Amino acid sequence: MTKYRFSELVEALPLILHYKDKVIVVKMGGSFIESLEGKAAFIEDVALLKLLGMKVIVVHGGGNEISARLSRLGLESIFQEGYRVTSVEAMDEVEMTLSGRIGKELVLKLNRCGVKAIGVSGKDGMLIEAQKKYLKHSATSLDLGQVGDVAKINPQMLQMFLENDYIPVVSPIGYDSLGNTYNINADSVAAGIAVHLKAEKLVLMTDVNGVYLDYPKEESFRSCLTSTACRLLLEDSSSLRGMGPKLECALQAVEQGVSCVNIINGSTKHSLLMEMMSNEAVGTQIVL
Amino acid sequence: MTKYRFSELVEALPLILHYKDKVIVVKMGGSFIESLEGKAAFIEDVALLKLLGMKVIVVHGGGNEISARLSRLGLESIFQEGYRVTSVEAMDEVEMTLSGRIGKELVLKLNRCGVKAIGVSGKDGMLIEAQKKYLKHSATSLDLGQVGDVAKINPQMLQMFLENDYIPVVSPIGYDSLGNTYNINADSVAAGIAVHLKAEKLVLMTDVNGVYLDYPKEESFRSCLTSTACRLLLEDSSSLRGMGPKLECALQAVEQGVSCVNIINGSTKHSLLMEMMSNEAVGTQIVL
Amino acid sequence: MTKYRFSELVEALPLILHYKDKVIVVKMGGSFIESLEGKAAFIEDVALLKLLGMKVIVVHGGGNEISARLSRLGLESIFQEGYRVTSVEAMDEVEMTLSGRIGKELVLKLNRCGVKAIGVSGKDGMLIEAQKKYLKHSATSLDLGQVGDVAKINPQMLQMFLENDYIPVVSPIGYDSLGNTYNINADSVAAGIAVHLKAEKLVLMTDVNGVYLDYPKEESFRSCLTSTACRLLLEDSSSLRGMGPKLECALQAVEQGVSCVNIINGSTKHSLLMEMMSNEAVGTQIVL
Amino acid sequence: MTKYRFSELVEALPLILHYKDKVIVVKMGGSFIESLEGKAAFIEDVALLKLLGMKVIVVHGGGNEISARLSRLGLESIFQEGYRVTSVEAMDEVEMTLSGRIGKELVLKLNRCGVKAIGVSGKDGMLIEAQKKYLKHSATSLDLGQVGDVAKINPQMLQMFLENDYIPVVSPIGYDSLGNTYNINADSVAAGIAVHLKAEKLVLMTDVNGVYLDYPKEESFRSCLTSTACRLLLEDSSSLRGMGPKLECALQAVEQGVSCVNIINGSTKHSLLMEMMSNEAVGTQIVL
Amino acid sequence: MTKYRFSELVEALPLILHYKDKVIVVKMGGSFIESLEGKAAFIEDVALLKLLGMKVIVVHGGGNEISARLSRLGLESIFQEGYRVTSVEAMDEVEMTLSGRIGKELVLKLNRCGVKAIGVSGKDGMLIEAQKKYLKHSATSLDLGQVGDVAKINPQMLQMFLENDYIPVVSPIGYDSLGNTYNINADSVAAGIAVHLKAEKLVLMTDVNGVYLDYPKEESFRSCLTSTACRLLLEDSSSLRGMGPKLECALQAVEQGVSCVNIINGSTKHSLLMEMMSNEAVGTQIVL
Amino acid sequence: MTKYRFSELVEALPLILHYKDKVIVVKMGGSFIESLEGKAAFIEDVALLKLLGMKVIVVHGGGNEISARLSRLGLESIFQEGYRVTSVEAMDEVEMTLSGRIGKELVLKLNRCGVKAIGVSGKDGMLIEAQKKYLKHSATSLDLGQVGDVAKINPQMLQMFLENDYIPVVSPIGYDSLGNTYNINADSVAAGIAVHLKAEKLVLMTDVNGVYLDYPKEESFRSCLTSTACRLLLEDSSSLRGMGPKLECALQAVEQGVSCVNIINGSTKHSLLMEMMSNEAVGTQIVL
Repeated sequence: MTKYRFSELVEALPLILHYKDKVIVVKMGGSFIESLEGKAAFIEDVALLKLLGMKVIVVHGGGNEISARLSRLGLESIFQEGYRVTSVEAMDEVEMTLSGRIGKELVLKLNRCGVKAIGVSGKDGMLIEAQKKYLKHSATSLDLGQVGDVAKINPQMLQMFLENDYIPVVSPIGYDSLGNTYNINADSVAAGIAVHLKAEKLVLMTDVNGVYLDYPKEESFRSCLTSTACRLLLEDSSSLRGMGPKLECALQAVEQGVSCVNIINGSTKHSLLMEMMSNEAVGTQIVL
Repeated sequence: MTKYRFSELVEALPLILHYKDKVIVVKMGGSFIESLEGKAAFIEDVALLKLLGMKVIVVHGGGNEISARLSRLGLESIFQEGYRVTSVEAMDEVEMTLSGRIGKELVLKLNRCGVKAIGVSGKDGMLIEAQKKYLKHSATSLDLGQVGDVAKINPQMLQMFLENDYIPVVSPIGYDSLGNTYNINADSVAAGIAVHLKAEKLVLMTDVNGVYLDYPKEESFRSCLTSTACRLLLEDSSSLRGMGPKLECALQAVEQGVSCVNIINGSTKHSLLMEMMSNEAVGTQIVL
Repeated sequence: MTKYRFSELVEALPLILHYKDKVIVVKMGGSFIESLEGKAAFIEDVALLKLLGMKVIVVHGGGNEISARLSRLGLESIFQEGYRVTSVEAMDEVEMTLSGRIGKELVLKLNRCGVKAIGVSGKDGMLIEAQKKYLKHSATSLDLGQVGDVAKINPQMLQMFLENDYIPVVSPIGYDSLGNTYNINADSVAAGIAVHLKAEKLVLMTDVNGVYLDYPKEESFRSCLTSTACRLLLEDSSSLRGMGPKLECALQAVEQGVSCVNIINGSTKHSLLMEMMSNEAVGTQIVL
Repeated sequence: MTKYRFSELVEALPLILHYKDKVIVVKMGGSFIESLEGKAAFIEDVALLKLLGMKVIVVHGGGNEISARLSRLGLESIFQEGYRVTSVEAMDEVEMTLSGRIGKELVLKLNRCGVKAIGVSGKDGMLIEAQKKYLKHSATSLDLGQVGDVAKINPQMLQMFLENDYIPVVSPIGYDSLGNTYNINADSVAAGIAVHLKAEKLVLMTDVNGVYLDYPKEESFRSCLTSTACRLLLEDSSSLRGMGPKLECALQAVEQGVSCVNIINGSTKHSLLMEMMSNEAVGTQIVL
Repeated sequence: MTKYRFSELVEALPLILHYKDKVIVVKMGGSFIESLEGKAAFIEDVALLKLLGMKVIVVHGGGNEISARLSRLGLESIFQEGYRVTSVEAMDEVEMTLSGRIGKELVLKLNRCGVKAIGVSGKDGMLIEAQKKYLKHSATSLDLGQVGDVAKINPQMLQMFLENDYIPVVSPIGYDSLGNTYNINADSVAAGIAVHLKAEKLVLMTDVNGVYLDYPKEESFRSCLTSTACRLLLEDSSSLRGMGPKLECALQAVEQGVSCVNIINGSTKHSLLMEMMSNEAVGTQIVL
Repeated sequence: MTKYRFSELVEALPLILHYKDKVIVVKMGGSFIESLEGKAAFIEDVALLKLLGMKVIVVHGGGNEISARLSRLGLESIFQEGYRVTSVEAMDEVEMTLSGRIGKELVLKLNRCGVKAIGVSGKDGMLIEAQKKYLKHSATSLDLGQVGDVAKINPQMLQMFLENDYIPVVSPIGYDSLGNTYNINADSVAAGIAVHLKAEKLVLMTDVNGVYLDYPKEESFRSCLTSTACRLLLEDSSSLRGMGPKLECALQAVEQGVSCVNIINGSTKHSLLMEMMSNEAVGTQIVL
């Protein structure tokens, strides 16, 4: 019955209006990006959001692929509190995998969808100045090597891309004034960019459905959290499992002016479009 | 099952890309615009096309409403070969109904959907210069009164609207250098505007499904016509019923550079969106 | 003796300089607009001011013509404290007369003078949001029907017109968020627009020479009033005759930043040009 | 009787419209510029034309003042076929008088009228490349010294001035690639600039009323000449008196696209305004 | 003796003027880029040319580094007629080395010099469409794998970079419509970009001093070659050693509108600056 | 040895970066401008600074040349506290020499170097409003005639020149609202312009090496002075010789936002370039 067609689109009209011309930062990470189908759906979603008038910025991670490469080269992957200890030698491999492979693949796929994309890292246009990361809470001062934190974001290059209708695809690599290269957590990069480009929304795509107070108990799932609730949760983040750092990024973003942050499951096909274009609850939303 | 949602939208991606930034002229006429529901669906469709990046121009007719008003004022509606014989007195009523009521109502509804619209007639910004119409083929030279043809289109005002993201809603009224006002066929106005604004597509919305070689026999329906086929049909247009003049407008438009013209049924809800955003055949398409 | 020619123009040089690039809002009302000659002179004056570099906005009324039309349709014109009680049915006629006839006639005449004009109502470009008017001082709460007050002005569309060298001709019609249409006093609309477009001057053209403390005694005429004097006069406005609401609009305008408001007699040919381009006192001027 | 006021201005409306945004080049020369009153009227005229929307360029001469200065310095003024034989030493004086005094005085007076002016010579912005002038028709090859012809006009600087609403006041001085300075006839400079800036009109202001076939017989006066008529007259220019070279400039201008050239009498007060703003015949008009 | 300082700069004035705002494409290849000092001098030269007003584009190669990486991964480097036979697996390594390492390093170094750079490959902004390369002259049809030729250049992204004062650093990677990735000769990429961006000059930096008719005999060195001479040389290119393909690129560039191509030795410190800013002959220049 | 070439340029890189797009005002005065060679070197320096991306403004003096001219005309040059007593008659000569000769000569020479220049005085574009100067400290009130002080700077014209890549060459002449012309000290004009155009640097070129506490003792030379030190020196300026007023201008400039002022010796060839492009101390630098 053709007469009921396009009802979803018609119903999405107020949301399309709301997001038009707004900056939306999407962190794309997790294992779903390794499935061809998952990647294809993600690319289509980004292309559609762009065509619906949003200024989309993609930040990507690359965990599994980096590990595979390092292991192939005989370099062991050691993690400290979730951070990959990164030697200068490994840093080279991390950078090449992120800036030279994963980013370019996303760019190529977006271009083939008819939207224009450019893949950059934090080195291009002096986008991300970094500083070496030191773990604060550790008894022993652990050296994470080339792991860095965002020290400063220079948004001009990304603004040029957005004004000229390009989708920036950003690899989470930073530099410092001495010429060192740093591996930065992609969620932090996405949050920093969202703040500096005055994004309306930051979407963190991952492998789980959102925030569980006591993972994986379904009843502990939360579809909405205020910043106050986040802060309380982060005081004792043990039961959050890996969600802790992600929640911290979300909190920082909303506290610095991003209207809302959504943590959603990238394995659900078209979850990004669903979150943006329907009133249905998808994942966990963090607001001020 | 949420996972199949938005499939229509995803499939429409190539069409959205194709029409982005293109000028689309939609002539909205027929009795469907008198049903509240039909009007609402039309307004939603126009708003969505605008949000999907098209530069939409609406031209409206107003046949039934004009007849009702004239009859209320005791002025009889006489038609000659499909044209309403229009006295100077009746012209006033026609103009007020088109520019002062129907156009403004569409504008208000579009605005309430969140897209910006401006209602103008051919007098505003010197948009449509007209000349008195004389019926060519008649034995006796009939005087149609204030019925006019498009003599010249000045597209600057519409270009200003489009560049500034307004949807122009045009009433088919023209003027001449002596200060006379003319009632012009809305299909001709739409075709003229489509040509002068280098439109990608002209959509003529009416009360029937499209062109029938022998109306209303279903098997005589044609979903696609070339300009050559059109010209042949127009040589003996008797079996086309009221479709003749509409086909002539379509032919002129494609011959002067409009890529395609579609004659579709406005009574089918969201038929405009369907025609633009799906590969399904809707109505009759005329191409060079 | 040709050598004295153009002396007026030469003397007007400092005034031309003063008004160049300034916004001037002219409310055109009263019976003079019904004389062909009066209208012609007004149109010439507006065209000249435009050519001399001013950004002119015309707001028009339409009292007599509306009454004539309503009476022809057998709808009685009832006034309460100067406001026309307007049923929904009458509203349609009011709107059609203003937006569909009077405005378009002015546009056509301006265009024929070589300056570009566009006729819009408060619905176009969401220009005038209105709210229902309730008479405050009445013992019994009278329902004026579709009579409204200006609730909000969205100046973007008018700014676009001015930047692109069009003269906006505004019909005093407003809308509300529920889709209702309102008939608004043209003086209030002109004052509201003057304030929101930061006009240098608001000229209210009417049928009398200006403000008389005790109309029609010549010696009670005032050629200049401060806002303080206005406020005092308005406390007991009985002797002002119909001038009260006009004075209130003028007061609001100067209190919200319009440099001066002039109430002048439209029946005096070229009174607008005289007021703007000579140092001679014409009508009553209200300043802060 | 105030009601007849501004009739001249109203009647000038079509001419104002015609000249709006057009480039008008006015060569100002002759003895009238030495009377304070004549200069004042000229300045007012230029200011008004500017305010009426024209892009006015003034080119000035300086014959008498230069002679006075040279004689004060004991340098004799010798003329050959109307050209001042100019030694390198005299050139310095000519340049200083034109660029340093006459031009700056006009600029100051225009500024005081409220319009912005900039005084430049052909050296500024590389405006006028010159080449040494040799008299063609002479038996003996006379050396005119630093007298030059226009070799090339670089219009960019003047275009910048016009776009930014400045009135350029040009001194007729040129340079060559070797660094020499040349004294150029102001009529030729005005004609060259009119051609390169695609002027609508070139006005040559002088001391006589226009072209007389047999000066000063009134009946030999011509108020209009075609280019063909000009060419004929120039074949035997003896009876034209000093008007020959002026007519040659006029002819070149109309042949290279300037719509019309007017030779008018600067001694008649406001003759420039009269020529531009009335339909009355003033001086001689040369058209293609 | 400070008084002789800056004489080189002063002498370079005409060259600076000549190259101001012109597009200059520099292909940087050869072993010199592996020496820290050579790289530093190159970076300084590029930064200076940029600051002197040129629109510089850098295209880089990466031969030795790629070979090292492949050998480390146990992938043998096989060359056919100078082209690296590239399996899909090796392609990944080539791309990561070029886009992920060499390009980003240049970007970082340029940024640290105070000029803004962005590293892109042919995938970004759809810059370089490629097609599979087949060796023409071979008896047996050899499969080079992912080696490609430039099929189409889309210059918009680079134009955006240049207009916004960024130095593009381009990795010679292309894509095709099926989503394949290709390794393209950096000289061809530089030549293609020079042609499509209407470059004034293409500089090919390599390990030798320029073109020798009979390498390495000094007397066979040529400092200037016309396109005709090039074509003759290329008919029998055996004595040119590796210079053949480079000369072919140069020839194509000059034949398609690049004013001149220079082949210079990157091992000579600041050879780029010397070639651009002095009249001294550096390397071989190819002109039409 | 070519390999060491361009080392100065390479070393200047950070300074070029620092001054790029900054406004630099250069007052050029002193006897060096009378030597052909000195003038040529100065012109080259200005052209190079412009090509290196600076927005250079030149202000020139003309002391000796004015004196020569006045004496030739039999007008004695009388000075009071360093100011030339200027009759109305002498003012004419001063203006003509500055605006009509010296300025135009600089313009011509800059144009011949390939950079575009425009010579203006304070009258053009209403640049410098002046007021009559009265000597404050004198027992008897001396009348300096047409000597003036800067009363107001209107920077719009200069901004237009800089945005359009022209080098303004400014003659130190001012006007007042009554139409009088004033001779103003060129250092004050340069300082006033530097302040109003938010210059990064003001360079005052003169005949001595800089500031000597006790001229001409070498050991009393100061290469750097703070504003505090300047103020102290100015309290008893007797030992400063002619440097007093210059130092006062410098002080005013740094106190009103100019980052640094340099007093350098124009007789040293290319001293301007040396001061700007090397870290070597040249002359005296005044900073806040």
